[in-house]
Amino acid sequence: MKATIVTIGDEILIGQIVDTNSGYIAKALDKIGIQTHEMLSISDDKQHILTTFAALQNQVDVVIITGGLGPTKDDITKKTFCEYFNDELVVNDEVLAHVTQLIEGFYKRPINQLNKDQALVPSRCQILFNAVGTAPGMWMKKEHTVFISLPGVPYEMKHIVDHQIIPKLVREYQRPYFVHKTILTYGQGESMVAERIEQWENNLPEFIKLAYLPAPGRVRLRLTARGTDPVVLEKAIADNVESLAQIIGDIIVGFDEGETIEVMIGQQLMARNKTIATAESCTGGKIAQLLSSVPGASNYFKGSVVSYSTEAKIKVLGIDSELIAQFGVVSAEVASAMATQVQKILQTDFAIATTGNAGPTSEPGKAAVGTVFIALATPNDVMVAEFDFGQPREKVIDRTANKALEMLQKEILKFLP
Amino acid sequence: MKATIVTIGDEILIGQIVDTNSGYIAKALDKIGIQTHEMLSISDDKQHILTTFAALQNQVDVVIITGGLGPTKDDITKKTFCEYFNDELVVNDEVLAHVTQLIEGFYKRPINQLNKDQALVPSRCQILFNAVGTAPGMWMKKEHTVFISLPGVPYEMKHIVDHQIIPKLVREYQRPYFVHKTILTYGQGESMVAERIEQWENNLPEFIKLAYLPAPGRVRLRLTARGTDPVVLEKAIADNVESLAQIIGDIIVGFDEGETIEVMIGQQLMARNKTIATAESCTGGKIAQLLSSVPGASNYFKGSVVSYSTEAKIKVLGIDSELIAQFGVVSAEVASAMATQVQKILQTDFAIATTGNAGPTSEPGKAAVGTVFIALATPNDVMVAEFDFGQPREKVIDRTANKALEMLQKEILKFLP
Repeated sequence: MKATIVTIGDEILIGQIVDTNSGYIAKALDKIGIQTHEMLSISDDKQHILTTFAALQNQVDVVIITGGLGPTKDDITKKTFCEYFNDELVVNDEVLAHVTQLIEGFYKRPINQLNKDQALVPSRCQILFNAVGTAPGMWMKKEHTVFISLPGVPYEMKHIVDHQIIPKLVREYQRPYFVHKTILTYGQGESMVAERIEQWENNLPEFIKLAYLPAPGRVRLRLTARGTDPVVLEKAIADNVESLAQIIGDIIVGFDEGETIEVMIGQQLMARNKTIATAESCTGGKIAQLLSSVPGASNYFKGSVVSYSTEAKIKVLGIDSELIAQFGVVSAEVASAMATQVQKILQTDFAIATTGNAGPTSEPGKAAVGTVFIALATPNDVMVAEFDFGQPREKVIDRTANKALEMLQKEILKFLP
Repeated sequence: MKATIVTIGDEILIGQIVDTNSGYIAKALDKIGIQTHEMLSISDDKQHILTTFAALQNQVDVVIITGGLGPTKDDITKKTFCEYFNDELVVNDEVLAHVTQLIEGFYKRPINQLNKDQALVPSRCQILFNAVGTAPGMWMKKEHTVFISLPGVPYEMKHIVDHQIIPKLVREYQRPYFVHKTILTYGQGESMVAERIEQWENNLPEFIKLAYLPAPGRVRLRLTARGTDPVVLEKAIADNVESLAQIIGDIIVGFDEGETIEVMIGQQLMARNKTIATAESCTGGKIAQLLSSVPGASNYFKGSVVSYSTEAKIKVLGIDSELIAQFGVVSAEVASAMATQVQKILQTDFAIATTGNAGPTSEPGKAAVGTVFIALATPNDVMVAEFDFGQPREKVIDRTANKALEMLQKEILKFLP
């Protein structure tokens, strides 16, 4: 069973907004065994929309469209959607009552004509009620293809997908099974990993597909099994992951989507009843953001001091200005002091500190672009390592954050749970 | 002149990765007057790729493809790209020398066969040298369409787009002009704004298009003028923005892409030589991330304490546990104390604090989902406001962050630069 996801909106085609809706929908469809054939972003143009719909008609089973359902003149999806089905727009009383309550409740004003028009829907469509917004979703079938139109506001789209579309698809369609397993490795490059597992990869069964997802300092390996018997798929994946672990167990740090290194670090810290804080210069809060992105992080992540400026290092972290004058801001000594200071201030067991030059430029006599010091304070001592992460800026920041978490995890595991 | 951007990779179609490459490329093309007709994400499947290329042939002037150029078995773009042009892969010595230097330099090991294969390129293609990675970009023309293949790693793609593709397109193609102007408004809903400016909107000239970009708590209005004379376009945009400002000047907080409210706050703080810090509970660092995302933020953003837990509020921010016991964590009193405490600790002029229940659940006797207190400490006093931002969680967090920045800006502007 196949789906195509269509995003309508010039803001995406000029790069003003990144389309995160399609990924969310694709993930939800994948979980119930519906394969996303393509994702497509097109303009707020009637002809472009109609041509696209016609091309997708009977090519896939489901077309999910987001965007262009707002109340304003540039929102033409609903009219065009209705026209494609040769239908007419009629007022839906339930939607009208809901819109009225939302507008008068939140904005404390009577609804205007534009709000009222949001209750207009194609007479033959099935309404997908939008509990958190004014524009309803619409479900209409033509020949072999279901067309579903959703608002583009992410939390409205998500609410309708989770509470209406997925349950409805599960009820109404037979679907195959997909099983994914992602193996997270740190410290070796894609080509090196591929070389080590070449024979294993060649022996994978036909119905299992391997994908490499490289990022600075880490490579994710994704296994996907497709078939009709979930038990067979799960078994085959488990067996192959086991044999893979025997080959590259030394660089595997975790499994599966949720299990990023920050999620595992969270579990490992909680199991040991230990806490962590960060003091970040060149990573600008990236490590704190990764650690605090994990639900329940407040149990072990005590906070972060993002100290861009020398002044902040002195005032907020209490680094000795003499030390900075003597060794420079980008130095092992300052990194070490940042880690021990934030560990002391936030009273944590572990603390990470980063200082470096992520670029783009380097002052004469100062650290070269790519030079980074990572300090790690543990309950017992503090260690510092120097790296040259090259450029550009983005890569230096990613590599620094990934390497720091890798170093942290190694130290955490030295303590017994 | 039209372009279509194609992303190749199953990781996007299963929602494992969000495609940020296409938006970056579209923005770069838009700046030089090339219109992105469509964005397309397809699978790592030879037939799917070939069919897509054939469909785009002569439909647009430029096709930019990202992804699938890695060294591993699942990377099939280069072979397929070469096949589409009935060409053969040959070793490029410059690329081979570069790959050797990168691998031996960074990974400190001799290159393997997979690395060497990265130097294979179609014999007739123009190489787009990849200074920051191992996979080169490739430029090949067939009839009226140029096909450009790029690596999917974002910083590699960006480097080749910025340093090679854009300059080459500017040199080799005649292009029209686009002028965009984005007007940022806060505090009124899309339909309300549309009602107020309806007459102005109806009087816009044919060659100017208006788009509404709503988000919780704010609406961006984007004007786009297309034509051949940039002077005429700029003038028309300027005149219409001026007349718009006369209608909704009360809710306009800024103009243009870069000028988000956090960018303006940065300029306004610097002009007044004032500083800011945040103490965040329900926003979990969102406001700090917005403020610190602005280049040069270290001049005025001193840092943030993200205090999820009651314990962190007491230990790190030094909030009186009595106060929390008496009024509850989600209260005007605690919000106010958080703001004044972080202002004191980080020695700033202004401080924002947030505490609330973003959901999804609410404990009996505790604050309802959507209840948020925002406190703002200024050099003179501290103010607190209570809001009901409804649900879901994502909306509550966004609305809280936007409202807090809106409140902050109003207070900053009370001080003379």
